[in-house]
Amino acid sequence: MSGPPTAVAAVRHAVRGALDGLEPGALVLVACSGGADSLALAGATAFAAPRMGLRAGGITVDHGLQDGSAEHAAEVAATMRTLGLDPAETASVRVGAEGGPEGAARAARYTALEQSARRLGAEAVLLGHTRDDQAETVLLRLARGSGGRSLAGMPARSGRYLRPLLHLPRSLVHTSCTDMGLVPWADPHNADPAYARSRVRQEALPVLEQTLGPGITEALSRTADLLRDDAEALEAWAREAEERVRDPAGGLDAAALAELPRAVRTRLLRHAAIAAGAPAGALGAVHVAELDRLVADWRGQAHVDLPGGLRGRREEGSITFRAETGSRNAEVPGGGHGDRHTGPAARTAR
Amino acid sequence: MSGPPTAVAAVRHAVRGALDGLEPGALVLVACSGGADSLALAGATAFAAPRMGLRAGGITVDHGLQDGSAEHAAEVAATMRTLGLDPAETASVRVGAEGGPEGAARAARYTALEQSARRLGAEAVLLGHTRDDQAETVLLRLARGSGGRSLAGMPARSGRYLRPLLHLPRSLVHTSCTDMGLVPWADPHNADPAYARSRVRQEALPVLEQTLGPGITEALSRTADLLRDDAEALEAWAREAEERVRDPAGGLDAAALAELPRAVRTRLLRHAAIAAGAPAGALGAVHVAELDRLVADWRGQAHVDLPGGLRGRREEGSITFRAETGSRNAEVPGGGHGDRHTGPAARTAR
Repeated sequence: MSGPPTAVAAVRHAVRGALDGLEPGALVLVACSGGADSLALAGATAFAAPRMGLRAGGITVDHGLQDGSAEHAAEVAATMRTLGLDPAETASVRVGAEGGPEGAARAARYTALEQSARRLGAEAVLLGHTRDDQAETVLLRLARGSGGRSLAGMPARSGRYLRPLLHLPRSLVHTSCTDMGLVPWADPHNADPAYARSRVRQEALPVLEQTLGPGITEALSRTADLLRDDAEALEAWAREAEERVRDPAGGLDAAALAELPRAVRTRLLRHAAIAAGAPAGALGAVHVAELDRLVADWRGQAHVDLPGGLRGRREEGSITFRAETGSRNAEVPGGGHGDRHTGPAARTAR
Repeated sequence: MSGPPTAVAAVRHAVRGALDGLEPGALVLVACSGGADSLALAGATAFAAPRMGLRAGGITVDHGLQDGSAEHAAEVAATMRTLGLDPAETASVRVGAEGGPEGAARAARYTALEQSARRLGAEAVLLGHTRDDQAETVLLRLARGSGGRSLAGMPARSGRYLRPLLHLPRSLVHTSCTDMGLVPWADPHNADPAYARSRVRQEALPVLEQTLGPGITEALSRTADLLRDDAEALEAWAREAEERVRDPAGGLDAAALAELPRAVRTRLLRHAAIAAGAPAGALGAVHVAELDRLVADWRGQAHVDLPGGLRGRREEGSITFRAETGSRNAEVPGGGHGDRHTGPAARTAR
């Protein structure tokens, strides 16, 4: 008796590994665009989940961005039903403009997936990202230069979201799709050079393979895993240290902060600024570096302006965060020699 | 009175920052190939060092790899003398074969620099690496997939070696060279596609600029700085933890190791294996991952084979390292079902 083709077996094995430990009877939802990766995931989950005592359903998101997208979504839902996924639903979203075309579509998609998962009581939502997607993500984030936290890429597991295929090559996942007899949809966005991810996929990674060797995709994916471990350890250290350096008035003891390694101190300052109301997305490395100068390079700076109208100060040996009080004089310092305002913009202009 | 051109001022400023804190009268040596980067560094150091009460000399290394290399080195030494560097010497080396052509040349160069620095009693050796070199280094190391420690790139300061230009764009350093009236030598190796670094410079980085944006060089350099901070903090944690988990017999307490985050544990295991005699260069991520399985995924593995004829074992709750006892039976396990040998090679073959 021969088993399934190698690629199909590998994808099913990866799905079983990801679902291991879920309670019998739990519902898992596959997020499926109809593309080869998520279609393979749907096929493998429809096979593996019932054999593990789990219920498997599927969701396809209609982004409403292309003509006929509703019909396409209905077809994908029908395919999922044929595979045995139940429920197999369509979620329609309206994509906004914030965060660029890719960011806005992603935000709308995750909101829809979250709502569907809650409504249906799903324990897990499975996403079809492969090792190649991870490598593309690392390269895209490398371009930001925001360090290890961001370079760590996508996690295999984050809350109810699971990425069973994250360590499998895209080519193998595509082969499994064909071997399962499934006909994938080729999203024209994936090849559109207007999207940074498409350019990375079609141009950057092939050139890196030529110049650095064919193992670059695997190396980027391994890098993401190692940096994720590093980021988790440093985040844990920063959380633990934050409790120790917090003084009774709620400020952070600057002398105690100065004893910490910079990697821990900057993470701690970032947490504290976000906890005090700075929007995480707007708080950049340059803001955190300025906050760190209040600790490690203190020359009497008056304050650091942070996103969300927040100000970081050093007062009597303590780092504090307070809402800007709003006087125009404070916002546009009139002083010449006496101006010791040191916001990031002021630094950059020097 | 007008000051020096902007690029010259920026390079001199960077050199002054790097030399700050050296004792008056100390000798600093510029390592100069005659290329634009290190020639600019030589010019700026010859200007800045005496004004800081320091003595400035220069060394050029003759690798003996190209026809006329001895004459070229003599010319570079003469140029350095003209700039006012004293002593200005040539060091001839024989490049071996180990580590590939670039690695072997680098090893021979650093040995020669180290010997010259000791012989002349130099407090610091200045290297001409720019922000672009750092970006190339990060990309080259990314291809190895060996994580944050390696991606952190070149340090601005390591022992007596200083890299004053590490945060300056190569283009600015080249402009400063022209503005100082210096005529650089174009090393044909820098454009030879046989070298991985040349391919990264000529092919990979330009394509990444096109696909990810023109800020990629700066982003890679900033990433290196952030990852260096991360690596230093995690190394410090691992060193501190190693003292705590070391048991009286010299082994490492497996239960205490298991409490540590993986990023710390794997660094600690790497240190311990190197301390026990494993050659650092040959000890790969795959070996460390196998050692970590003795702690975090213990299923009765007999031992892990490490480079340098070393074996890691788990014995009575303790991780130990011992030289392989050398019986042929141990090296080539004859057993079938009873074979629980788990070296990295054995894992890969599964």
